[in-house]
Amino acid sequence: MEQTIFHKVLSGEVPCHKVYESDAVLAFLDIMPCAVGHTLVISKTVDGANMMDTSPGSLAEMFEAAHRLAPMIARAVGADGFNVIMNNGAAAGQVVMYPHVHIIPRREGDGLKHWPKIERTQEQLAQDAVQIKNTVKAI
Amino acid sequence: MEQTIFHKVLSGEVPCHKVYESDAVLAFLDIMPCAVGHTLVISKTVDGANMMDTSPGSLAEMFEAAHRLAPMIARAVGADGFNVIMNNGAAAGQVVMYPHVHIIPRREGDGLKHWPKIERTQEQLAQDAVQIKNTVKAI
Repeated sequence: MEQTIFHKVLSGEVPCHKVYESDAVLAFLDIMPCAVGHTLVISKTVDGANMMDTSPGSLAEMFEAAHRLAPMIARAVGADGFNVIMNNGAAAGQVVMYPHVHIIPRREGDGLKHWPKIERTQEQLAQDAVQIKNTVKAI
Repeated sequence: MEQTIFHKVLSGEVPCHKVYESDAVLAFLDIMPCAVGHTLVISKTVDGANMMDTSPGSLAEMFEAAHRLAPMIARAVGADGFNVIMNNGAAAGQVVMYPHVHIIPRREGDGLKHWPKIERTQEQLAQDAVQIKNTVKAI
C-alpha cells in the first residue's frame, strides 16, 4: 500500500497537532482547516484507502471516536454545531488516500455554504430509487 | 420530542423513495438532492436530534449501513466516489432535527466545491490543540 502522510503521522515521522489518542485512533488538527478546531480522526489500523475498502471494524472505531470527540471539540472552540464528513475517492474531494473522518466545528453565519440542489422530478427520483434498489439487491 | 418529517416517513404517513430497509435502518432518496442518488440513512430507533444527543448504538447502525450501501449507490448511479456527511445542529446546516447520514455520489468535475481553507498559523494550531485537549480531558 502507498505510504501516505498519515502513515508518517502515525509513525511519528511527521509531527501533528494531536488532540486525542487511544489504542485504536489518533485525532489531530487539519493543517489546512476550514474552521478553527477542524480535526481529523484516523484509525491506527492501516486498512484500505476509504469506505470503499475499509473494514467495518476500523470504520466503527473512527466514527465512535468522532461521536465522542466532536461535541467536546465544538465546545472547546465555542462552536454551535459541527459536520462529520468522510470523503471517499478523489472525485469526492479525498486528498490523502488513508481513511479519515473530518470534524468541522460550525458557527451560525460562518459563511460555509452547503452544496446547491439539483433539479430532480418525483418521477426521476422514483427511477433512481429503482436503479439503486436493484444494485443493492444484486450484491 | 418534536415530530419531524422523518418520523412521518418512518410511520408511513409521508411517502419516500426507499432504496433500502432493515430492522434497524431506513435509507431513502433526499427529495432536494445535491447529486443523483443522494441518499439519507436514518435509524428506526428515534433517539435524539443529532450526534450531540444520539446513543452510540443508533449511530453505529447508521454508519454501518452507510458503509455497506454507499459503494453500491455510487455504482448504481455511475459515480466515482461519494461523501458521507452528518450535519449536527442548525449552525452546521442540519435542517431536519432527526439524526441522519447523507450519502452523496460524486463524479470527477461535478462542480461541487469543498469549503475554502482559513488562515491558521502553526502557533495558532498548537494553541487550538491545547484548548481542545484540555476540554477533552476535563470531561
